[in-house]
Amino acid sequence: MSLTLPPLTKVTKPQFNFKSKHHFLPILCSSNSQSNPSPFSLVSFLRWVPDWADGVKESRVRDPRPLYTPENWREHRSSRRHLRHLLTSLSSRVILSLIPPVFSLTTFAGFIALYNTAVSLAWLPNSIFPVLKASPLPYQLTAPALALLLVFRTEASYSRFVEGRKVWMKVISGAGELASMVLNLRPKDDWSIRSSLINYIMAFPVALKCHVVNGSDIRADLQNLLEEEDMSILLRSKHRPRCIIEFISQSLNVLHLEEQKRNLMETKISCFHEGIGVCEQIIGLPIPLSYTRLTSRFLVLWHLTLPIILWEDCNWIVVPATFISAASLFCIEEVGVLIEEPFPNLSLDELCKQLHDGIRDIMSVHNLIHRRIHAKMKDLDEREVSDGRLSSL
Amino acid sequence: MSLTLPPLTKVTKPQFNFKSKHHFLPILCSSNSQSNPSPFSLVSFLRWVPDWADGVKESRVRDPRPLYTPENWREHRSSRRHLRHLLTSLSSRVILSLIPPVFSLTTFAGFIALYNTAVSLAWLPNSIFPVLKASPLPYQLTAPALALLLVFRTEASYSRFVEGRKVWMKVISGAGELASMVLNLRPKDDWSIRSSLINYIMAFPVALKCHVVNGSDIRADLQNLLEEEDMSILLRSKHRPRCIIEFISQSLNVLHLEEQKRNLMETKISCFHEGIGVCEQIIGLPIPLSYTRLTSRFLVLWHLTLPIILWEDCNWIVVPATFISAASLFCIEEVGVLIEEPFPNLSLDELCKQLHDGIRDIMSVHNLIHRRIHAKMKDLDEREVSDGRLSSL
Amino acid sequence: MSLTLPPLTKVTKPQFNFKSKHHFLPILCSSNSQSNPSPFSLVSFLRWVPDWADGVKESRVRDPRPLYTPENWREHRSSRRHLRHLLTSLSSRVILSLIPPVFSLTTFAGFIALYNTAVSLAWLPNSIFPVLKASPLPYQLTAPALALLLVFRTEASYSRFVEGRKVWMKVISGAGELASMVLNLRPKDDWSIRSSLINYIMAFPVALKCHVVNGSDIRADLQNLLEEEDMSILLRSKHRPRCIIEFISQSLNVLHLEEQKRNLMETKISCFHEGIGVCEQIIGLPIPLSYTRLTSRFLVLWHLTLPIILWEDCNWIVVPATFISAASLFCIEEVGVLIEEPFPNLSLDELCKQLHDGIRDIMSVHNLIHRRIHAKMKDLDEREVSDGRLSSL
Amino acid sequence: MSLTLPPLTKVTKPQFNFKSKHHFLPILCSSNSQSNPSPFSLVSFLRWVPDWADGVKESRVRDPRPLYTPENWREHRSSRRHLRHLLTSLSSRVILSLIPPVFSLTTFAGFIALYNTAVSLAWLPNSIFPVLKASPLPYQLTAPALALLLVFRTEASYSRFVEGRKVWMKVISGAGELASMVLNLRPKDDWSIRSSLINYIMAFPVALKCHVVNGSDIRADLQNLLEEEDMSILLRSKHRPRCIIEFISQSLNVLHLEEQKRNLMETKISCFHEGIGVCEQIIGLPIPLSYTRLTSRFLVLWHLTLPIILWEDCNWIVVPATFISAASLFCIEEVGVLIEEPFPNLSLDELCKQLHDGIRDIMSVHNLIHRRIHAKMKDLDEREVSDGRLSSL
Amino acid sequence: MSLTLPPLTKVTKPQFNFKSKHHFLPILCSSNSQSNPSPFSLVSFLRWVPDWADGVKESRVRDPRPLYTPENWREHRSSRRHLRHLLTSLSSRVILSLIPPVFSLTTFAGFIALYNTAVSLAWLPNSIFPVLKASPLPYQLTAPALALLLVFRTEASYSRFVEGRKVWMKVISGAGELASMVLNLRPKDDWSIRSSLINYIMAFPVALKCHVVNGSDIRADLQNLLEEEDMSILLRSKHRPRCIIEFISQSLNVLHLEEQKRNLMETKISCFHEGIGVCEQIIGLPIPLSYTRLTSRFLVLWHLTLPIILWEDCNWIVVPATFISAASLFCIEEVGVLIEEPFPNLSLDELCKQLHDGIRDIMSVHNLIHRRIHAKMKDLDEREVSDGRLSSL
Repeated sequence: MSLTLPPLTKVTKPQFNFKSKHHFLPILCSSNSQSNPSPFSLVSFLRWVPDWADGVKESRVRDPRPLYTPENWREHRSSRRHLRHLLTSLSSRVILSLIPPVFSLTTFAGFIALYNTAVSLAWLPNSIFPVLKASPLPYQLTAPALALLLVFRTEASYSRFVEGRKVWMKVISGAGELASMVLNLRPKDDWSIRSSLINYIMAFPVALKCHVVNGSDIRADLQNLLEEEDMSILLRSKHRPRCIIEFISQSLNVLHLEEQKRNLMETKISCFHEGIGVCEQIIGLPIPLSYTRLTSRFLVLWHLTLPIILWEDCNWIVVPATFISAASLFCIEEVGVLIEEPFPNLSLDELCKQLHDGIRDIMSVHNLIHRRIHAKMKDLDEREVSDGRLSSL
Repeated sequence: MSLTLPPLTKVTKPQFNFKSKHHFLPILCSSNSQSNPSPFSLVSFLRWVPDWADGVKESRVRDPRPLYTPENWREHRSSRRHLRHLLTSLSSRVILSLIPPVFSLTTFAGFIALYNTAVSLAWLPNSIFPVLKASPLPYQLTAPALALLLVFRTEASYSRFVEGRKVWMKVISGAGELASMVLNLRPKDDWSIRSSLINYIMAFPVALKCHVVNGSDIRADLQNLLEEEDMSILLRSKHRPRCIIEFISQSLNVLHLEEQKRNLMETKISCFHEGIGVCEQIIGLPIPLSYTRLTSRFLVLWHLTLPIILWEDCNWIVVPATFISAASLFCIEEVGVLIEEPFPNLSLDELCKQLHDGIRDIMSVHNLIHRRIHAKMKDLDEREVSDGRLSSL
Repeated sequence: MSLTLPPLTKVTKPQFNFKSKHHFLPILCSSNSQSNPSPFSLVSFLRWVPDWADGVKESRVRDPRPLYTPENWREHRSSRRHLRHLLTSLSSRVILSLIPPVFSLTTFAGFIALYNTAVSLAWLPNSIFPVLKASPLPYQLTAPALALLLVFRTEASYSRFVEGRKVWMKVISGAGELASMVLNLRPKDDWSIRSSLINYIMAFPVALKCHVVNGSDIRADLQNLLEEEDMSILLRSKHRPRCIIEFISQSLNVLHLEEQKRNLMETKISCFHEGIGVCEQIIGLPIPLSYTRLTSRFLVLWHLTLPIILWEDCNWIVVPATFISAASLFCIEEVGVLIEEPFPNLSLDELCKQLHDGIRDIMSVHNLIHRRIHAKMKDLDEREVSDGRLSSL
Repeated sequence: MSLTLPPLTKVTKPQFNFKSKHHFLPILCSSNSQSNPSPFSLVSFLRWVPDWADGVKESRVRDPRPLYTPENWREHRSSRRHLRHLLTSLSSRVILSLIPPVFSLTTFAGFIALYNTAVSLAWLPNSIFPVLKASPLPYQLTAPALALLLVFRTEASYSRFVEGRKVWMKVISGAGELASMVLNLRPKDDWSIRSSLINYIMAFPVALKCHVVNGSDIRADLQNLLEEEDMSILLRSKHRPRCIIEFISQSLNVLHLEEQKRNLMETKISCFHEGIGVCEQIIGLPIPLSYTRLTSRFLVLWHLTLPIILWEDCNWIVVPATFISAASLFCIEEVGVLIEEPFPNLSLDELCKQLHDGIRDIMSVHNLIHRRIHAKMKDLDEREVSDGRLSSL
Repeated sequence: MSLTLPPLTKVTKPQFNFKSKHHFLPILCSSNSQSNPSPFSLVSFLRWVPDWADGVKESRVRDPRPLYTPENWREHRSSRRHLRHLLTSLSSRVILSLIPPVFSLTTFAGFIALYNTAVSLAWLPNSIFPVLKASPLPYQLTAPALALLLVFRTEASYSRFVEGRKVWMKVISGAGELASMVLNLRPKDDWSIRSSLINYIMAFPVALKCHVVNGSDIRADLQNLLEEEDMSILLRSKHRPRCIIEFISQSLNVLHLEEQKRNLMETKISCFHEGIGVCEQIIGLPIPLSYTRLTSRFLVLWHLTLPIILWEDCNWIVVPATFISAASLFCIEEVGVLIEEPFPNLSLDELCKQLHDGIRDIMSVHNLIHRRIHAKMKDLDEREVSDGRLSSL
């Protein structure tokens, strides 16, 4: 096996720009063109396939995800969805990233089928080489355990997704509430510092997002919210979300507030601390690895021996059968692994934007409402004076 | 295939008014009459079916749902329910919306049965065309995984339903509590502004409902609660629930309250912010799409190959067998998808109305109770003076 | 079918008084005697059976349920329980209410068995009438899905039961805490109003119970707690639990309290509002009906076709097999439906009584403890003066 | 059947002292010796077996359970555990208490096997007595439903166990926090009353334990914490945990505290009220009995008919097969029933002791820390004066 | 059996230093060399194997675990992961620790196969020794129950893991929030005591970690945070986490704070008390032992009889079949047992370090932000004076 291997790690990094539609061909070509003029070999191909699949998957992870709209929901419920999902199977990145294991196991099933055919056609001496076949009974008995394990593993990942979603809900609604409280503080004399405080509050979710999503550009994301001097302090800090909290706390400290109000507002910051805590834990502590590895090993062992189990019943159909079984079960496992780190799936950019729009919207109507309420109060006071106590109550 | 297709997107929109009972015929007719005098073709029919099914489903989503009453519960528990459910199957909109996928898969099963019959009767040359059949063993091994996946997907949807229900409970009971607090504020001198504050509080759940249910008419829903000037400000705002919160906060600000009370009431508003946060997340972030697509693809692939698996055992019975299996399993998936967006299923209109009735009811007894308590206190004070300390304690 | 039917709706209501032990015979008799002298016909019998079953079930729903005691638990754990449960099967109301669907499906299975026997014995011409039989394979593949669906539906009902139980725990323990706080307010000068306030607090859970349990008599339940004038106001209100809250809030308002204490106590009322919210939602919003109907239809369809599936393997044993399968699976569904509305199962009367006993018990020891603490303090103060600082600390 | 039965209820109570190791023989003997000299009969034996099994189980419930230590955990994880569990099977009380149902069902299976053998060997006329056998297909179809039902029932019990554990965690940590707050109150002038207040706080979990665990001796448990006069008041009360809360509340009332601090401490008592509420509910409201009975009946019916189902495949092996199946499935049910009332399994004595040790430990270091902090402060103040502002910040 | 056994307990302890890579050979050698020159016997080997497996497992438990980084996640998702997991199977410590039970059961299966072969080849007289075989039907019926039990047992362990993770999140984020509040207290005159207070706060999670992880060295872990005198008090205490709380409470007491602020900060300490409570409960109260033992016994019994069940279908393949089934199912159980005590799996050291880095980071930017905010405020004030009210609001 004197095959020269192309320098893979260098090759793969820069050219994976899958955001363009036609990403199949360029990769195949560029991979060939950039690599040394080595003979295109099987081993290099085998090493290239998982790298390519991982490249596809990683680019997918970084894709921004829009929030669902009513139109999306209508499409989501549409009875055409099954056809659409079926037709997009081949371009689905989840499925592409399943190619290496499923392909390997199917090939292995093919080899076993070939070997068994060879033995049964007496191409290989029957006396030495036995036909590889076995009763399916042990598999029927352990099939429910495998299915349960797989689906519960996926459920555990999904509950991490939900945990991430819920803590972001708390961060977002906490920021909205805090901004609303700042806007309605009563002594109306320090608008300037309050306006920058609201900016800090809006900046927190963005900073937290950059903290948990790998490859974020915090400078770009925050340049509309923070002034240059704030930004330089923030960038010097190693833990940006805590640094923003410090900005908020100190701004609260310089506001002219009664003590009780200040304390009330400080307690609202606790949802930000909780947000940091949960996010760091979800990122730092995956589902226990022994659990994950158990599922993965169980799956691989099961499919490696599946062709032997099925041979008697299925003959050459073991190959498509192994393919379909592996595709289904590995796909369940793959989905479980993909949503185990929930933040790339949570449209955090869009959630922050939605919050910012909401806060800016209130700021735009704030004065209108202020005038309206005061006008009304004056109006009602006058009416009350003339009518006596309101009869509607 | 030179079939001319009717301009579907234009046709489908206006005439789906399924709220009338006899909606089958008019659709069939109007669809024919409005479309150009093109020959009624198979392809156009095939495209029309899912549009029709989706139209039925969408109209169902918009239907107002009443709250359950004790009579409903009695009927719900009745031992006649199974018969009732069976008889209403054909008019059930969930089942109607299942027609496209189930019909397609059954037809496909029919084709496979036809082909296999043709081959086995030697209408097609046996040497070229093999009988499509396979051992059911791989299907028996993966059946539990499919069942679990389907049911867990449905469970995940149901837990979104429960999450939506719970957050609405918080919004409703928070609004009730806040209204009750406003009603019982002690310095009884600003009834007028308080009465409009209670209206704003009652308006919040309605505004949130309009925010999360597509196609709501906020002007119609709120016209009894808000004055025209308030309404015009509200309509100018892009984020109506936050705008109502702003109205509430500013009204609290102008009330003559001690600081501590005001702070207490402000903290009660946090359940409104939480309501906005949860609702926007449930709408914006569906169950991870990879999960949904996996289930859908697994289902379709399974049923496409099911006739091959069943052929040896069932022969032409593969057609009803595929029909029943597809109807059952797709229905589970359909229910999961329908309750994934929970708000149309939550009778939000009725919950708001129930809250309004409750608040109006307290307002109507407020003065009665006020007089009663004061009379009692005076009475008791006098008795106490004459009797000394109450012996019952 | 010119059968005259007895006027069922009128008949069923008054005579179902199942609280007596021997309720089988009187029903059977009275039903015959009260109905017009119409010939006792099959159809009327078929319509009478589900009415009778529902009557049994409804009477069961209204039965008061005692709280479990240690003796009940001992019996509950006893190894004789299986025998006891088996022997009480026939008098179990859940099982009686299963008679209509299980009986119908078993009869249907009998008809199919009869038909098949007729065909195979050539009583019916084989050429026209086929034997109704099919391979069980499709059923084996979908059996796990049905089982999961059923059991998860039951789980969803059970989690509603738990939700109801938990919110009642909050209401009960909140009322206990509030009563305890009122009892220990420091300026001891308005005992009379406080005593009536404690009565209002004890009345809240009772009012909520009457609000959620259909057919409660609030006047009877509250006559020991409320005076006549309070009661008349309460009965005039449409939403009694909110009305009681109003009584509590206004009583708090007239107590001589510092502002902070009053606010603290007001926040405790929020668990009452939460109680109202959760209870109204559990009653108003069942598990999505599409889910319930799906389960019911799946079950019926499955059992209608089960005899065909089993014919080849079981012959006439299809009848008992269908019976056992239907009895088991419909019973799971029935239990799920019964605990979906949890309040009749929650022994609310007993919980309220337990709370009242607890509060009355504290009131009875309150003065004892008061004297004891003050005596102790005086004692300790003196000792301290003589000994200097306590050495134990 | 003129058998005279020994007076069982009297016999069983006193002599079940299973805490000694060799409890098999004495029971067997004493049961014979104490009963009247009636002939040892089958029926009396049949009635004695479940009583004996229940006696074993009840004594097990009362056993104190130690908290797990690191050594226990090491043993718990040890790879020898499977062997240990297997060897202790026969002395396991859970398994002993399974003897009645499993033994009965196995015997019944033996009878059926005997009958079938008799018929097939023509000892009984074939024409009248049919061989009892049936196709296992209906059982294969309902097996997943039974398994799911059983395991979900067990899960529901386990979640009650977890609920009980969590509320005790709240009570324990709430008591710890309250004790710590009392210890650190600032005006240090009423040590004596504070010390007795800390004792009341430590007494609450013990009183709650006695309230929920049947057969506790509250006097013995609390004699080190309460003085005789307190104890006599406590014993006169019917609801001891609420009585202790009353002691705590009134002690707080006589402490020299600012109002705000007192309110803060009063809110901490709410976890005690919650503890009472949850514990009383868990004891008073079991899992809905219809659910429990359904599981039990399903199990018994299944195993009664199992030998018929298995006869064709297994012949006389139906007896061990029924035994193993019944032992496994009834054991799952038994475990579910045992942990349904969680308090005897929660080592409450040890949890209280751990809390007391913790509180006493702080009290012992309290003064040390007090002196240390003040020394440090003085030291730092001096350094600060000489150094200016601390550079580390 | 006159075999002399090596003194195992002494031998195993010191030489298990598995942190070196090549730990297989040294153990095998040293075990031989250190033991007395006894003949290497089967029994001593059988006793040595589980000791060795446990030694491997215990050393694994003590291994520090790093937090996951984005690179780990990329690798975690990589499509090469299945191959990696498969290749590391043999060095996996979970799998090594499975050797004793799986090996024993496989050997037992081998013996049964041998016996059956002997009987069928008539080496043993057929008349006396029956072939051990049975119908697999009872196993097919109970297989789902076993699978469910196993996987739910694992789920229960996993939910303990999640509970532990969540309470640590609360402790960590509570400590972060408290430190941040201390840093931003307004009267800036007691920096020295505050700096030591922050150290105490940072010390709490470390002390809690040492409390829950067996074999921790609290002196080494805390020497950078606590001064020598504090440390000596801490080490004298028996309950170190409570002792640290006492340090924090007393430091708060000597700070110059308004009362309200002090109360606010004291309430934040409640998450520390909760942390102690949950951790002590998770350690002290395992999943009910009856549940754990049931699973273990069910598993062992199942695999002991599995070869008999499989003999007819599989012949000698029973040996690998038993091996694969035991390996899979015992591995699920093993994982469940391993994560039942979650703290060694939670990377607590790293979580504490992350918190410390975060707090130190804020302290480093604190003054920068302080200056920045004050500069900005001055700047804005001036602008405001010249511009009038800010137009952006």
